Amino acid sequence: MSQPTIGEQALELHKNLKGKIEVVSKKPVKTMTELSLIYTPGVGTVSTHLAEHKDQIRDYTVKNNMVAVISDGSAVLGLGNIGPEGALPVMEGKAVLFKELAGVDAFPIVLDTQDTEEIIRTVKNIAPVFGGINLEDISAPRCFEIERRLQEMLNIPVMHDDQHGTAVVVSAALINAFKVVDKDMGEATVVVVGAGAAGSAVTKLLLALGVGNVIMLDRQGIISRDRSDMNEYKKEIADLTNRQALSGDLALAMRGADAVVGVSGPGILKAEHIKLMAEKPIVLALANPVPEIMPEEAKAAGAYVVATGRSDFPNQTNNALCFPGFFRGALDNNVRKITQEMKLSAARALASVIAEPTPEMILPTVFDPKVVAAISTAIKD
Amino acid sequence: MSQPTIGEQALELHKNLKGKIEVVSKKPVKTMTELSLIYTPGVGTVSTHLAEHKDQIRDYTVKNNMVAVISDGSAVLGLGNIGPEGALPVMEGKAVLFKELAGVDAFPIVLDTQDTEEIIRTVKNIAPVFGGINLEDISAPRCFEIERRLQEMLNIPVMHDDQHGTAVVVSAALINAFKVVDKDMGEATVVVVGAGAAGSAVTKLLLALGVGNVIMLDRQGIISRDRSDMNEYKKEIADLTNRQALSGDLALAMRGADAVVGVSGPGILKAEHIKLMAEKPIVLALANPVPEIMPEEAKAAGAYVVATGRSDFPNQTNNALCFPGFFRGALDNNVRKITQEMKLSAARALASVIAEPTPEMILPTVFDPKVVAAISTAIKD
Repeated sequence: MSQPTIGEQALELHKNLKGKIEVVSKKPVKTMTELSLIYTPGVGTVSTHLAEHKDQIRDYTVKNNMVAVISDGSAVLGLGNIGPEGALPVMEGKAVLFKELAGVDAFPIVLDTQDTEEIIRTVKNIAPVFGGINLEDISAPRCFEIERRLQEMLNIPVMHDDQHGTAVVVSAALINAFKVVDKDMGEATVVVVGAGAAGSAVTKLLLALGVGNVIMLDRQGIISRDRSDMNEYKKEIADLTNRQALSGDLALAMRGADAVVGVSGPGILKAEHIKLMAEKPIVLALANPVPEIMPEEAKAAGAYVVATGRSDFPNQTNNALCFPGFFRGALDNNVRKITQEMKLSAARALASVIAEPTPEMILPTVFDPKVVAAISTAIKD
Repeated sequence: MSQPTIGEQALELHKNLKGKIEVVSKKPVKTMTELSLIYTPGVGTVSTHLAEHKDQIRDYTVKNNMVAVISDGSAVLGLGNIGPEGALPVMEGKAVLFKELAGVDAFPIVLDTQDTEEIIRTVKNIAPVFGGINLEDISAPRCFEIERRLQEMLNIPVMHDDQHGTAVVVSAALINAFKVVDKDMGEATVVVVGAGAAGSAVTKLLLALGVGNVIMLDRQGIISRDRSDMNEYKKEIADLTNRQALSGDLALAMRGADAVVGVSGPGILKAEHIKLMAEKPIVLALANPVPEIMPEEAKAAGAYVVATGRSDFPNQTNNALCFPGFFRGALDNNVRKITQEMKLSAARALASVIAEPTPEMILPTVFDPKVVAAISTAIKD
């Protein structure tokens, strides 16, 4: 008999667990006195106090340490629009990692709507329970408006992890990868393949970090100002990127590039693309669960540093390196709004965890306790 | 120095805990292999499977054992409309009891809206995560429509606990109290004081149980068909109750009554009201945290059986006797809709836990393991 695959093992494990998280009481309740304190009549005093001092809700309730992990199931992993049922195991997994890695309580919410206005209203309506909102696996361009408007409405941090978690970890990976290949980011060209939620956030953060030139591609090819088929978000990207005003396909973009960041789908990058790059190519193939190019194929084609989003290959460039520490810091430092400066600080903090990066080690593992410590310290006003 | 009150102790405890519940992983995640199984890439197989088999969501996720405890803060305990902040500690307390008493995972959701349509939409939108919806502390008459429409929309059980949890526990208490005073319920008159969420549900369940006559009062007095100031819900009650077509105040209703159920507010019942009742009066004074009449005063006025909603007096007639086992049964037996027959079965099951009721023991305590066992068995299609 052959060994079951990771997927088969995962299916079996999920069927046995029937839910990866549970909600438990911090204190056992075994006596009438304990019941009187956590429930009626004692809790009435707490309720009355909070009705009169609404601003003290964090001092007495779960809001102090609770993050919502919210998805409409419209862009789950690399699997596409699979709905709330398909999204729930992923959101539960994030809740597990929030707690296990950073001691943050997190609760998965998957939505029975993909309408922008409904999502905004729903999240606003349930926000009183939460100290932070982690939006997850919501497709572009809706995710941009949902995040922006919720952050304007709410006085708790709202972060779409597919955008900013990815941007922070990719930026940290590239900081260290450019150290490994001994190139100056300010003179480098980075190709970003994929114009979904992750692509534009990665592009903007790389530019803020000082990368010389970014070329971004969607399904139609290089994003450039001379195209007429773009929405407002892509037009903004066109204004920021593609210094040489290239028009064309992936092969054209890859010619002479120093690094490529795949945030698109399985198998998009071919060996011949890697062969077009400048010396010592850096390849971040982050589509999950199947990357844009498998590491062995990228290496065989000449890639010098290779990373994927998966935990079963070296250099896991996974958002799990960011979001636990990011919200740990936001909660601990009472941050009400996430800024670009915080993301830059987080990327630099994450990169700094690896003192001497190598081709096989540009990022720490998610289990390195220095990761949460470094990032959480970076997230403050 | 004087001993701190229960309220002062509760405030201190809540400030120390900063949230009474936490969200924990059922399995520790310490290795890359474990990470690969609960998160990417393994979870992708589970997501793909559930996208294709949406009806299997309970077999692989928290929906299997997760109840939402949802309030808009409009009618919290006996404290009134104190908003989501004031409501949150109560909902957390319910989540604690769900888990501690019945092993049900429950998550508190307090809403930043009191609009009926917004509440319905919001609950519908977050429902995919949950195997049941416990509505809580939502004021009448909005609570009736919210519960009815959500139950019509969703294929998971929706129960407004202030209505039906109260009705079940009150019914069980009266079954046993009438045994204690050796009277036939079919010939008895029960006065229900308070026409909020609890009052009408209690009235309807008592009638279904076979109580001979129920007289219900709101702030304006006895609910009777000749009044012109009533909404549709009160008109329905008028048609079902008040056999003698009395018009008047509380004193008139109490004259010769066998039992009174207070689901109104602190201090509404006076000693002189109790003195008007038939022999061996039964007094359930359930307003929380301060009852309609304190037990010692009721006893002094002649009450034979006295119960309150509080855990610091005998005969705690508290919803905590019902909701944990009620949802335990609904989840275990895959119940999609709560029926009146289930509530009757639950009331009889709860009463049966006390083989020989006495004036000081008409109900078991919430810590009696027979309670959840009895009620959960009663909740099935």
